[in-house]
Amino acid sequence: MNHASRQQSWKIQTELPVAYEIVESHGLLNPENPELLTIPGGGRGSGTRLVILDHSVDELYGAAVRAYFSENEVKVEYLTLPGSEENKSIERVLEVVNKLNEVGTNRLSSPPIVIGGGVVADVVGLAASLYRRGIPFVRVPTTLLGQVDVSVAAKSGINYGGYRNRLGAYTPPPRTLIDRSFLATVPDRQLRNGMGEIFKMALIKDLRLFELLEEYGAELIETRFQDPEPGSDGLPGTVADEVIGRAIAGMAEELQPNLWEKDLKRSVDYGHSFSPLVEMRALPELLHGEAVAMDCVFSALIAAGRGLIDGGRLERIVAVARRMGLEPSHPLFCDVALVLEGLADTVLHRDGMQNLPMLTAIGEVCFLNDVTEAEIERACDGMARLLGTDAGRPGRPVGADR
Amino acid sequence: MNHASRQQSWKIQTELPVAYEIVESHGLLNPENPELLTIPGGGRGSGTRLVILDHSVDELYGAAVRAYFSENEVKVEYLTLPGSEENKSIERVLEVVNKLNEVGTNRLSSPPIVIGGGVVADVVGLAASLYRRGIPFVRVPTTLLGQVDVSVAAKSGINYGGYRNRLGAYTPPPRTLIDRSFLATVPDRQLRNGMGEIFKMALIKDLRLFELLEEYGAELIETRFQDPEPGSDGLPGTVADEVIGRAIAGMAEELQPNLWEKDLKRSVDYGHSFSPLVEMRALPELLHGEAVAMDCVFSALIAAGRGLIDGGRLERIVAVARRMGLEPSHPLFCDVALVLEGLADTVLHRDGMQNLPMLTAIGEVCFLNDVTEAEIERACDGMARLLGTDAGRPGRPVGADR
Ligand SMILES: NC(=O)c1ccc[n+]([C@@H]2O[C@H](COP(=O)([O-])OP(=O)(O)OC[C@H]3O[C@@H](n4cnc5c(N)ncnc54)[C@H](O)[C@@H]3O)[C@@H](O)[C@H]2O)c1
Ligand SMILES: NC(=O)c1ccc[n+]([C@@H]2O[C@H](COP(=O)([O-])OP(=O)(O)OC[C@H]3O[C@@H](n4cnc5c(N)ncnc54)[C@H](O)[C@@H]3O)[C@@H](O)[C@H]2O)c1
Ligand SMILES: [Zn+2]
Ligand SMILES: [Zn+2]
Repeated sequence: MNHASRQQSWKIQTELPVAYEIVESHGLLNPENPELLTIPGGGRGSGTRLVILDHSVDELYGAAVRAYFSENEVKVEYLTLPGSEENKSIERVLEVVNKLNEVGTNRLSSPPIVIGGGVVADVVGLAASLYRRGIPFVRVPTTLLGQVDVSVAAKSGINYGGYRNRLGAYTPPPRTLIDRSFLATVPDRQLRNGMGEIFKMALIKDLRLFELLEEYGAELIETRFQDPEPGSDGLPGTVADEVIGRAIAGMAEELQPNLWEKDLKRSVDYGHSFSPLVEMRALPELLHGEAVAMDCVFSALIAAGRGLIDGGRLERIVAVARRMGLEPSHPLFCDVALVLEGLADTVLHRDGMQNLPMLTAIGEVCFLNDVTEAEIERACDGMARLLGTDAGRPGRPVGADR
Repeated sequence: MNHASRQQSWKIQTELPVAYEIVESHGLLNPENPELLTIPGGGRGSGTRLVILDHSVDELYGAAVRAYFSENEVKVEYLTLPGSEENKSIERVLEVVNKLNEVGTNRLSSPPIVIGGGVVADVVGLAASLYRRGIPFVRVPTTLLGQVDVSVAAKSGINYGGYRNRLGAYTPPPRTLIDRSFLATVPDRQLRNGMGEIFKMALIKDLRLFELLEEYGAELIETRFQDPEPGSDGLPGTVADEVIGRAIAGMAEELQPNLWEKDLKRSVDYGHSFSPLVEMRALPELLHGEAVAMDCVFSALIAAGRGLIDGGRLERIVAVARRMGLEPSHPLFCDVALVLEGLADTVLHRDGMQNLPMLTAIGEVCFLNDVTEAEIERACDGMARLLGTDAGRPGRPVGADR
């Protein structure tokens, strides 16, 4: 008998069509606005809906949400979950699952609705993806980060064993609804956090967006992306719409051809190469977008070190980050060993390749696979110079070599 | 301001190509057989492989497995997990995840290998589907149920909150390897359990397979699907190959066009409409395939009650189940309230529809959406008559009305 011989074999080959939409709609909580009622596939569905609220959203908008559904005579049960990174946990996912069991959510026609930041969106997203092996859900991001970044994502993730997003799935909600009026109550720091991701998007593919940040970034944060008082001459709401819109459109364009990340060269990974471990180690000090902005600068230091971008561009990048109140550096980014450890895990995640997105201009990236320890060390030095100063060491350009 | 007005919107539309293979290969653990070494996409991969063994498989084949990998100079870490339904739990999934973290499994090139029954396959399948939001794995089913049913499945699932497969995912392993020599050590009852699923497959679409079961079912169990001693005139291995092959092929044919179960009319759900709750309530008394066989009979009773199949066919179905040592009935299947509760959860799972597959002949199904409580009651009575007797109440055909 030939032990190596194959006998019969069968192959299954098919394709999963995936479609989802991101809809901007002002006045979502106005009872006359039907967007929150319709379910993916059409109609209003049936059965009790589970609505999961971020705890701050519940405090600020809970009454309006409850009024909305009761005026529309929809049977709803509520679950309130805390936001913030520590709560992106398997325990919270199971809490949602328990509630879905309790409500008796069925497979298609009573999709849960999650209203909150990226944390509750990720937790509910994973719970929905697992429940009955996947049920639809509706996502209503209420933070800036949620609206410009999570909104477009197909994936969900929770932290586990000390690793960010170690467990997760690729199952997008069929509908994501965006209403920037939620941003009126988002704390400054959280808005800046969202700016971190917009900053990344501008750097990798959208010079116009970068210029908008350069010119209006600070003011957008100040006005919380809201329309000016009628009659006043504040920043028009169209600027907020353009910034949010360009960020979403850029993200959608990048994700669509590579939704399952089969291609591990992803320009949207810019800002996400060295930061994941730093962010976890710094918990709860650093927010995701803050760490991302630092990684954007760190990567720009490597690019400048290689001459891919010039010193002037590097200075402009650092200046725009600072203008939006985003620190360009952090002591952990000066710790060569830690940064190397972070890169090593990223390389595992990118299946053995660095695939490091690197700027060749503002709005353009290439990918590197040969970044050396010496270059990382030099970038760590650059980060040290940026630490706690306003413009690097006096008299020296921020990216200057030793 | 018109609160109901949409502003900007974006749509993401794409397709996920999915392909996986089921390969039958004799002598998998022969060090010269390379099937266990190659990784999906080709080559032998890199990094340490995690091999997860069912505890019985470890006892019986652990030495051979270790010898296989060490002779092939592959770095391997092992994890042994218990089989059996109680272990299809979130805790076991996290145990696998912890081990993947420890081993440092990367995204594509060191897929874990699971060798065992359906339980460990499901646990590892879900862990792999969640890990880094999905990594490939290799599945080696070692029970009959595993080889004919789990082998073709794209999905994984664990029990939660008292519900079977309440949490899970649709992420098939790119390779499943089948070697029926593992069946030599599978206990009789576990073989009969696998026969339950083959029985279902025969009933819904394969009269030839039904006839093979009728003629050789008992002998296949006796000989454990193994080749006869050389020179002896036992049942030839080709019969085992044909039965396993027809079951796999039938399953593959049914799954391919509807892998994500968008169409909730699934003939492979035959035997799985009333049984899930009965099976959970009877834990650990009933095995999955045993409950499935009972549900096949229960459904046939409903079909006979409507005149979809005649009494002769019903008797033949019951007789074949019995010939393979599968009980056609159980006291819980006589409990109208319980069966109705089970059906209610199935209806939720089928999004509000019964979509009950029903035989119109041996090898043919239709779908019913109007089965009444009275019909269920009558079928429960039929099950009571089948209980503990060899041919229903003396002098009365098994499906006879009151
Ligand atoms: N799934 C993805 O692809 C994806 C993409 C980007 C980010 N993320 C994840 O998103 C998370 C970060 O999201 P986040 O920044 O929204 O954090 P978050 O969800 O923790 O929200 C930040 C804080 O704002 C509060 N909040 C939310 N909405 C508010 C409102 N309207 N007014 C006042 N307070 C409000 C929350 O309670 C919380 O305290 C990270 O875990 C990140 O990994 C996921
Ligand atoms: N993913 C799917 O689509 C799918 C399809 C069908 C069934 N399943 C699941 O599979 C599970 C049942 O699988 P199962 O019947 O294989 O149960 P199991 O995994 O519990 O295995 C049965 C017993 O056999 C032992 N065993 C395994 N291989 C052996 C061998 N070669 N020799 C001796 N003993 C051996 C195991 O230790 C266990 O005690 C159920 O939970 C069911 O839901 C999943
Ligand atoms: Zn991010
Ligand atoms: Zn089954």
